This record gives sequence, structure tokens and C-alpha cells, in this order.
Amino acid sequence: MSDINAIAKQFTDFYYSTFDTNRASLQSLYREQSMLSWEGSPILGAANISDKLTTLPFQTVQHKITTLDAQPSSPTVASLIVSVTGLLLVDDSTNPLQFSQVFQLIPDGGSYYVYNDIFRLNYGA
Amino acid sequence: MSDINAIAKQFTDFYYSTFDTNRASLQSLYREQSMLSWEGSPILGAANISDKLTTLPFQTVQHKITTLDAQPSSPTVASLIVSVTGLLLVDDSTNPLQFSQVFQLIPDGGSYYVYNDIFRLNYGA
Repeated sequence: MSDINAIAKQFTDFYYSTFDTNRASLQSLYREQSMLSWEGSPILGAANISDKLTTLPFQTVQHKITTLDAQPSSPTVASLIVSVTGLLLVDDSTNPLQFSQVFQLIPDGGSYYVYNDIFRLNYGA
Repeated sequence: MSDINAIAKQFTDFYYSTFDTNRASLQSLYREQSMLSWEGSPILGAANISDKLTTLPFQTVQHKITTLDAQPSSPTVASLIVSVTGLLLVDDSTNPLQFSQVFQLIPDGGSYYVYNDIFRLNYGA
């Protein structure tokens, strides 16, 4: 499992630092068949997902990962499920929002693409 | 996606009502190759997962689902990823704990088994 955890760490480090500095570059992580559920809204395909991510209603955002878990998602392919919980700071807010995000990463050449992506904010009790 | 959402709803209704009333029965949802990450600890196989779930240090527990998302997890098999966020009430506590849980369900005969299961409590900021 150590390999998988290293891949998950490398992916999420890249994903969230790119999200926080240059959201448009995230498009290259998705494919035509990729799915995003964003706060319950389903979005299909790299172009639509990129449109969604680049038009979110904030200028600046900062992700801080609290927990990171990974598991192999198939007995036959080197795909993995990555589950993240963490905190988001948006624009000038000093009030962090909790979020949960799940990815399924599929091997593609020497790298991975995002096949599944599910994002949710977690509001308090 | 409506079919998938119905399956996810039916699974989680069953899973959490069984968890809250008769945890030992959850074993039938897992197989030898099933994986659980429980608060970061990896556990492999139905018997070990059942041991973990039935020896958690509380007598009574109540899950309340806040959000439920599902996506197909493969282009070729009718498997799905289910992502849940919600609240937990343990024993006599009146202070709900937030949790996030991710499942991958694999079709098996007319039903599904849990191949991946990742559980985390979400502590506040």
C-alpha cells in the first residue's frame, strides 16, 4: 500500500497546488469520459469540467488537506481511489470550510487521469 | 445516472440501518478481497473487517446521511463509487460527529459487494 499512498500524495499535492494557482491547467488531468459531481451537480468531460472549475465564484482559494486515504480500485488495473478531507479558504475569508473529495485515478501511459471526481462541502451539524 | 443514484440510496439505507442495529450482519456485504481504511488503518477481507466493525468502542450508534453522490466507476462493469457525508451519534452523546465514507460497489449476481470502503471522521477547523 505504500506505493499507492505515495501516488495519492503526489497526485493531491499537484492537484490542489494547481487548483490554488492556475485552475485552467487542471483540464489536462481529465478525459472525455471523466465525471465530476460538484456539490451534487453532474458534469461530464474534460472541457465541461474545466469550464466549471474556472468559473467558480471566487478569485482565490487555498486547500489544506487534513486526511488522505488511498486504495487500489481494481484487482486487474493499477487504478486507485483517493479520498481527501480538508479545509478550504476562499478569497479574504478567515473562516475555513470543510470539504470531502473523492477521485478515481486511471493509469494512462506513465501517468494517471481522473475518471471520477466527487466534491462536497461539509457544513456543520 | 438515476439508476445509479437509486442503487446508491438503497445500498446506503441498508448499510447504515444494519450498522446501527446489527453490525455483525455487515460481513455479508464484504468479500475476501475487500478493503477497509478505518481512520487511516488498513484492514483486508470480510472476516477482519467484520471484527473491526463489531469491536468499535461504542454500544449504540446512529448515522444520519447529509449528502450522497454516486458515479459509475468503470466503462465496462456496472460498478459504482458511492460517496457519503453525514453525522454520527454515539452512545449517549448529543454531540454529532461529522464523517465521510466512500464505497466502491461491485456487481455480484443480482446484488453488489463492497470492494473499497474508506471511513473518516471530520474534525472541525
